[in-house]
Amino acid sequence: MTDNSAPVGVFDSGIGGLTVAQEVIRQLPHESVIYFGDTARVPYGPKSPDTVRRYSREIAAFLGEQGVKSIVIACNTATAHALGVLREELEMPVIGVVEPGARAAVAATRGGHIGVIGTVGTIKSGAYERAIRAIEPDVMITARACPLFVPLVEEGWTDHDATRLIAREYLEPMLDAEIDTLVLGCTHYPLLKPLLRDVLGPDVRLIDSAEETAAETARTLNEAQLAAAPGADPAYRFIASDDPLQFLQLGQRFLGATMEGVEIRTLG
Amino acid sequence: MTDNSAPVGVFDSGIGGLTVAQEVIRQLPHESVIYFGDTARVPYGPKSPDTVRRYSREIAAFLGEQGVKSIVIACNTATAHALGVLREELEMPVIGVVEPGARAAVAATRGGHIGVIGTVGTIKSGAYERAIRAIEPDVMITARACPLFVPLVEEGWTDHDATRLIAREYLEPMLDAEIDTLVLGCTHYPLLKPLLRDVLGPDVRLIDSAEETAAETARTLNEAQLAAAPGADPAYRFIASDDPLQFLQLGQRFLGATMEGVEIRTLG
Repeated sequence: MTDNSAPVGVFDSGIGGLTVAQEVIRQLPHESVIYFGDTARVPYGPKSPDTVRRYSREIAAFLGEQGVKSIVIACNTATAHALGVLREELEMPVIGVVEPGARAAVAATRGGHIGVIGTVGTIKSGAYERAIRAIEPDVMITARACPLFVPLVEEGWTDHDATRLIAREYLEPMLDAEIDTLVLGCTHYPLLKPLLRDVLGPDVRLIDSAEETAAETARTLNEAQLAAAPGADPAYRFIASDDPLQFLQLGQRFLGATMEGVEIRTLG
Repeated sequence: MTDNSAPVGVFDSGIGGLTVAQEVIRQLPHESVIYFGDTARVPYGPKSPDTVRRYSREIAAFLGEQGVKSIVIACNTATAHALGVLREELEMPVIGVVEPGARAAVAATRGGHIGVIGTVGTIKSGAYERAIRAIEPDVMITARACPLFVPLVEEGWTDHDATRLIAREYLEPMLDAEIDTLVLGCTHYPLLKPLLRDVLGPDVRLIDSAEETAAETARTLNEAQLAAAPGADPAYRFIASDDPLQFLQLGQRFLGATMEGVEIRTLG
């Protein structure tokens, strides 16, 4: 029934999920992608599970109307709160960022102590702890919310003394606790990688779930026999719920020239 | 037609406007107040004028249904983008925070050089510059957006080294330019007053528009013959569009025991 040439829907509260979209585009070069960034209601991190679920459902319904064959929730907070209900309510495959990140962390840890950082919503939900323990019950996990990282990235202060000071304050207790692997549980955080490497030193592995999520998307589409034909010519659409120009400017920092234009669509 | 015992509606994107509500409650002890905080869509600061106008209209319509006799826009960004349309579209008096703040700044300046800080939306709008020049065309104005201050206040880091470092980065160019008065053009910023005083030194006057806005509300209600009777017994309602418990916890930091409970109401 579903057309294999139908696009994959990818959504996020804003622009952070473009790190995931970029990996999907890189690893699945024949798949078309529709990206929705809910910039009119960003951020999801501090908001309640009910509200994030309501927003996620509205976006999934909109992507369904656009004819997507599968949905990637490219936002840790939305994955934490809404992956379950969307999987229950939708016919199509729904992929989140938490399980792939958890799997990569378990594969990477040498000492068996994994750190997880994310928004308040993601950390409070305990989604990473559950996903990690479902794979490997016998690891130590230390988690903490880092609510200032998203505004610092959006301010463009990815290499600023204040960001370094704040990162030290957030992460030194994790270093003291001797984590050996750190899950970047928010799609904005990969832009802080060089600074985080400085603060954490060379012995802590950084896990960015974008790559794993794209790989999981590939596996899922193949299993469901939904993958695009090898010769297919992909199309990309980017849609934001607020000011498309601002999205375009910020988005090109993440995606470069792949993003030619941005449409606007109001939800709610 | 309107009942003088009807409540005054006060709204903000979130909790910041409680600094204004508190002053209204203090200066107008017989007025009932309904406060609406749009916590499901906070912050307004980085969002487009169109989106902020749409949200403000929805909130004004909701407050209208609750029978308010007047509306105070206790949010600088919403005032900058929506005061005009709400004044046009509504029968009742609408008061914003920008004009009162501008008036207080003009009264306070000794050297004739006023600094203005606020969200990206407020600063981009130029609303303070227009309001200040309408009162006193012959002043110098230096304005800049300080987008990290709101998340820092919400993180509770009002006296933190990182906040001091960020405040210095934002404000030192204003000190170099020799401003003598600084308008805190965002209702979150009054919580940073002690730190800002440290950074700016004793010679710069800080203008917090809450007091002036409450005074303006009193004048407006009197002129419109809408003031509550001197013996009236006020009632207070607090409504948020997201998680009322979180609003209550954060809100009591601003308002103390006046806030006994918070209702939830979804908009949009």
